[in-house]
Parts: sequence; structure tokens; C-alpha cells
Amino acid sequence: MSLPPLRLRKNEERRLRAGHLWVFSNEVDVAATPLTAFAPGDAVEVVDHRGGPLGTGYVNPRSLIAARLVTRGRGRALDGALLRERIAHALALRERLFPRPFYRLVFGESDGLPGLVVDRFGDVVVAQIGTAGMERVKAEVVAALDEALRPAGILLRNDVPGRALEGLDAYVETAAGEMPDQLTVEENGARFEVPVSGQKTGWFYDHRMNRARMQAYVPGRRVLDVFSYVGGWGVQAAAAGAESVLCVDGSAAALDALHHNAALNGVADRVRTMKADAFDALRALAADGERFDVVVLDPPAFIKRKKDQKAGEEAYRRIAQLGMEVLRPDGVLISASCSFHMSREALQDAMLRASRHVKRDLQITEEGHQGPDHPVHPAIPETAYLKAFFGRVS
Amino acid sequence: MSLPPLRLRKNEERRLRAGHLWVFSNEVDVAATPLTAFAPGDAVEVVDHRGGPLGTGYVNPRSLIAARLVTRGRGRALDGALLRERIAHALALRERLFPRPFYRLVFGESDGLPGLVVDRFGDVVVAQIGTAGMERVKAEVVAALDEALRPAGILLRNDVPGRALEGLDAYVETAAGEMPDQLTVEENGARFEVPVSGQKTGWFYDHRMNRARMQAYVPGRRVLDVFSYVGGWGVQAAAAGAESVLCVDGSAAALDALHHNAALNGVADRVRTMKADAFDALRALAADGERFDVVVLDPPAFIKRKKDQKAGEEAYRRIAQLGMEVLRPDGVLISASCSFHMSREALQDAMLRASRHVKRDLQITEEGHQGPDHPVHPAIPETAYLKAFFGRVS
Repeated sequence: MSLPPLRLRKNEERRLRAGHLWVFSNEVDVAATPLTAFAPGDAVEVVDHRGGPLGTGYVNPRSLIAARLVTRGRGRALDGALLRERIAHALALRERLFPRPFYRLVFGESDGLPGLVVDRFGDVVVAQIGTAGMERVKAEVVAALDEALRPAGILLRNDVPGRALEGLDAYVETAAGEMPDQLTVEENGARFEVPVSGQKTGWFYDHRMNRARMQAYVPGRRVLDVFSYVGGWGVQAAAAGAESVLCVDGSAAALDALHHNAALNGVADRVRTMKADAFDALRALAADGERFDVVVLDPPAFIKRKKDQKAGEEAYRRIAQLGMEVLRPDGVLISASCSFHMSREALQDAMLRASRHVKRDLQITEEGHQGPDHPVHPAIPETAYLKAFFGRVS
Repeated sequence: MSLPPLRLRKNEERRLRAGHLWVFSNEVDVAATPLTAFAPGDAVEVVDHRGGPLGTGYVNPRSLIAARLVTRGRGRALDGALLRERIAHALALRERLFPRPFYRLVFGESDGLPGLVVDRFGDVVVAQIGTAGMERVKAEVVAALDEALRPAGILLRNDVPGRALEGLDAYVETAAGEMPDQLTVEENGARFEVPVSGQKTGWFYDHRMNRARMQAYVPGRRVLDVFSYVGGWGVQAAAAGAESVLCVDGSAAALDALHHNAALNGVADRVRTMKADAFDALRALAADGERFDVVVLDPPAFIKRKKDQKAGEEAYRRIAQLGMEVLRPDGVLISASCSFHMSREALQDAMLRASRHVKRDLQITEEGHQGPDHPVHPAIPETAYLKAFFGRVS
């Protein structure tokens, strides 16, 4: 198959040759190959300024990321066969590492499938399409998932904010089979049920390994889980033997699900909830003299865009300090960030500065990352976004 | 108790106030408090240029690190009581996290005990003293360890290279009780015996968590362990179900111990060894068409000093490339570095460049660090030295 070329300007092929998959719009030689000649999602062959082939991909003239590579070969577009191959390759990794079918099956660029995220919840699947190029092969995506997994249902949660930038509508649809009202999750020996209408795909598998490590810290301890959502940390802490767990979240619906999950795991008697803003709750607990052995802070991204960086870093510092103020003398603060723009160094430094402010000593005992079902593409820094530090505060 | 002051120059107190524990010799106001007035190991009160107290510590006029803080209070020198307190605090962390007495008990600055490292091997203990200030209280160190652990033996492995910089002799002595010829180690369900005369303290507990994660990757697979030493990775891989393991090391004594350890774990039939230089061995294996599913590269520090950085980074890239050349199509490379001067970014980049060179795709599935018995002091970058990346190479 012959694909239309997308020609880069001189020297702009370097990032691709180093392993990256993105072409930014200002790198395209628009005199030779005008971006305006393409419709969003068109397949292209990306070539260097001399016409040398760099790979095939798809284009979106409306987006800052003008093209994304899907192969480093020639003539092969994103189609059903390529989708089946990549999904099988992604599945092989997960089946090697996870005994049960609960994981992120496809993590976009990192799995060679730019614009596609797929989470597996037992016999159902929730997918998110984020780009016009992937939307173009939506039917093939659904067919490939159906063939690989034979799931009872495939839901497209195509309501992610990024779609607007690609000129795509937001919608949610059951694309195959039937979806239950609740997704079932198994993680680190605990079991959860989450409304299909929950945040993102419904569950944050990315913290799996960090929650597994958390279990070593909580037996017999008093735990506070801030930004608890449906209890990923808090209910797992109780299931791992915490003496008591207080979960704080701003959403009544999330806390309802959390109570249900506590009951599912037989720990309802050790889990309490508080519906409140996280900062307000921490201040109130401090004022009431409430103290905990382990405090988990897993907030939503405080830094969504680069321009929010300074304010966001300050927010991470402030909440770390509030967390330390409700810690018992030999306590552990687990501080996480899913903001790509919050570096690991900045997050550790936020904890350090907080500890100096409250005049306590800090030891970092663990540094965690996203789990192996969220592989990092080593040439694309944005694919490594999650970090968690475990700090002993004395 | 009143301690002699060590006065800093103006603004040189900032690092200490931010949490660090070191005073460099060029930060001392030597007109006010000449370093030459002190003997190595003397206790001091560190004060800012106005005489305001910063903490107490000990001094060494011969060292670039002229002083190390041991408290942020006043008047309290490093003595038996402080050692007992700090060792008890360090022990509390390990006992909380590890069910069995096999771990690094004291990790220098990170545990508030600059110049002291203690590894625990069941009922015996191996300690290393690295500074004149800690050497001064050697008897108290031994007494405090004896009181805390009641061990059968305490060995001082005071033969670390850094001691020369402190003006200290190198020696090894049994400081209390009796030492066996072999140290016993339990790690991640496997058991090892190591000659007391082995590398460093005898065992590298720092990779425990990374080796635990390795276990998920090896069942039924063919594994190559390069720089194997006594089999920490390789024997554990076999114990975790690897189909076969080839261990490469340059030391016949290490490989003898490795065979013994394979037998101890009942996996001698699946473990082979090769005595060779690592680079030579990888080239020979590649030439012979030998291929593996998992390759572990855990070399000694290629970068010991900052000036070796460039050559060292190139060595990490070269060996990653050699490792990839003996990997089967869907293989996993585990690449580790214990060089502080090799950043995580540089190590990941070495793997990326190697993968581009051999034209294979790389996914980073795990990023690991030193385990929680080697806590990181967040104000002292040197305390975070270990990293390991797991890369899937397709």
C-alpha cells in the first residue's frame, strides 16, 4: 500500500530516530506537504527532508502533535491486522506478569498504539480512544479486542478531555456485548466494585505496585486515606490488617462505593469515611488532635498544565505538611503524584521542605512508580507520570 | 556538656538548614575556628556565622567533609546513649518491614549515624565504620549493637577504601562473640551462604526488592545472570522457577559459593556457571548463538568518581547492547547501576540507545531502587545510589 508522505524539515527527524513517536506541527515541511491537505486521522508515511522513510503513522492537522508513528517500516497503515498484532503483544506482557485478568491491557504509545487505552476488568473491557487516527479505526479496535479476549462487553469511555483538542466529540457507548452496572476489580488480594460511570475508566490500576508495598506498613496501624475515591488504598489497608482506616473524599458517590467495597472485603467495621475537601479535612483532624500511623495522599493531578507548575508544587508541599501534622511520632507519609509536570525530585523536595517546616526528620523508605501494565516508553517522557514516595517521619 | 564550636562562613548554614548533615571544609570560618585545632573525630557544636546553633557533630580536619551533624540540638555529642537510641530507631523500621532478621540495620546518614553501616545476618552482625568520628566511639558502637541484638558475633569489616581519606587504617576484627566462616542470608524465600571474607559486608541487601520483582519475570524462562557474585539474582531466579540459569562472574571463589547456594535451594540442576569477564562472555555467547529470555546486568560501579562519568555511561550503554544481543525476540533486560554518578535518566537512556542500535523496541516495565533497609536521606543525594530498570525488548 502506498501512503501519502508527510515530509519533515531538515534535522527534525532526530527525535524520531532516537525512538520517539510524535511529530509536532512546526516540524513539518508544510511547503512540501501541507498539513491542510490532510483530514484528521489520515494515514501517512513520515519522511525526512530528503524523502527518506521514517515510518508510517496518522496525522491530525488540528493538533499540536501533527502525526504519531505506528510503525518504523513502510507502507503499513494502522489497520485491523496491526491492531490485532499489537494487542496480542500487549496481552502477552500482562499475562506473563498478572495471574488474573485485571490490568491495563493497552497503554497508548508505550504499547505501540498511540491514542488507545484499554483496561480489563475480568470479562469486560473499558477502552478510551484519544485521537482522530485511532477513532478512524474504532470498529477494528473493537473487533480486535473482541477477538483477543472474547469479552462479555466492551465499553468505549470516549469522554476524555483530550478528545476536544483532536476535534472529537465526547461520548460513552457499549460497543460490543453488554456492560454490567458495576465493574469488578481484583488487586493485591482485595476485591472491589466500581460504578461503570466512575472516574476515567473506573479504576486506577497504575498504583497497584505502590498499594502492594503499602500493605507492609499498615498491619495494626491507624491509617488515613485522603482523596480515597472508592477505597483503592484505604480498603486495601484494612484488608492488609490496619487497625482502623479513615477515608476522606469529596464525592458522596465514591464514599458509597467505598463502604460497599469495605463490606465486600469483610472490613466494614474498621473503615470510616468523611465527606470533605482534603485540605479542610486535614486541618480539622489536626485541630481535633487526631493522629495516624500512616497517611496516604494520592491527589488528582495538581498540575495539569505546565503553567500551573509553581502553584501545583506549592500545593503538594502544603498537603504534605498537613499530612505530617496528623502523623504520630514514628509515622509514615505516602505521598503520590500523577502529574507529569511534577517531577520526582520536586515531589521528594516538597516532602523534605514540609518535614523541615514541622521540624521532623524524614527518611524515604520507598520510591514507587506506575506498574508494569503501564510500561514507560523510554523516548517519550510523558509516558512516565506516576510517582509515590514513602516517607518515615520521626 | 559544652562542645567546642565550629563556625561556618556567612550563608554556609543553608544546606544544613535544608536538612543536610555535611559541612565541607571550605564552608568553615577557619579564622574564627581553625580546623587545624581539632583532631580527627573531635566532637563539635556547629554554629552559623553569628554563633547561632545548627547542631552537634564530629569533625575531621583531614577530610573534604570537615564535619557531619549527628543532632540538631545543643550540647549532645555522639556517645553510647545516642548510639543506642539511633540503633533502636533503625531497628524499629526494619522490624516493622521484615519478618526475619536479614537486612541492613544501619545505613549511615540516612539513619542518623554518619560513618556507620551495619548488616544483620541472622544472629551475627557485620559493621563498617567509615569515619574518624565513628571510629572514636567504636567500643560504644559494639556495646550498643550487643545490647540491641544480643548477637552471637559482631564483625568489624573496617577495610573500606574510604577510610584512608579519613586517615584511618584498614582492618577486620571480630569485636564481640564469635563469627562463623559463612554468613547466612535469607532473601525473598531463598537461602544463601556467603564467605565472611566476601565483597563489602558479604551481601548486597540493597537489591532485595528488585530481585523480588525479578521473580515474576522468570518462571519457565532461560535466564542469564551477568556479574553474578554468589548468586543473589541467578539462584533466586532458579528458585522462582526459571527453566535454566547461566551465571557469569570473574571470581572462581564467588562461583564456588554460587554452586553451594544453588544446591542449598535445590536448584543445582538448573544452574550453570561460567568464569569469565562479563564483556567477553556476552560476546562469546552472542557468537555462539546462545539466547535468553531474561538477562540480568548488575555490574560493580562503572563510575566510581565524577571524572569517570562519560566513560562509565558508555560502558553501561555497551553492556546493555551486548545484553540485548543475547535476548530472544520478546526478552527482558534487567539493567542495574549502583553508581551514584550514573543517574536514572542516564541509565534508562543507555538502554534506549542500545535498543535503537539493535533496532528493537524497548518498554520499561519496572523501575526499582534500593530497598527500605537503605532509606534515602532526602537532603543528601548521595544516599540514593541504586537503580534498576526492567526493559522488555521486542
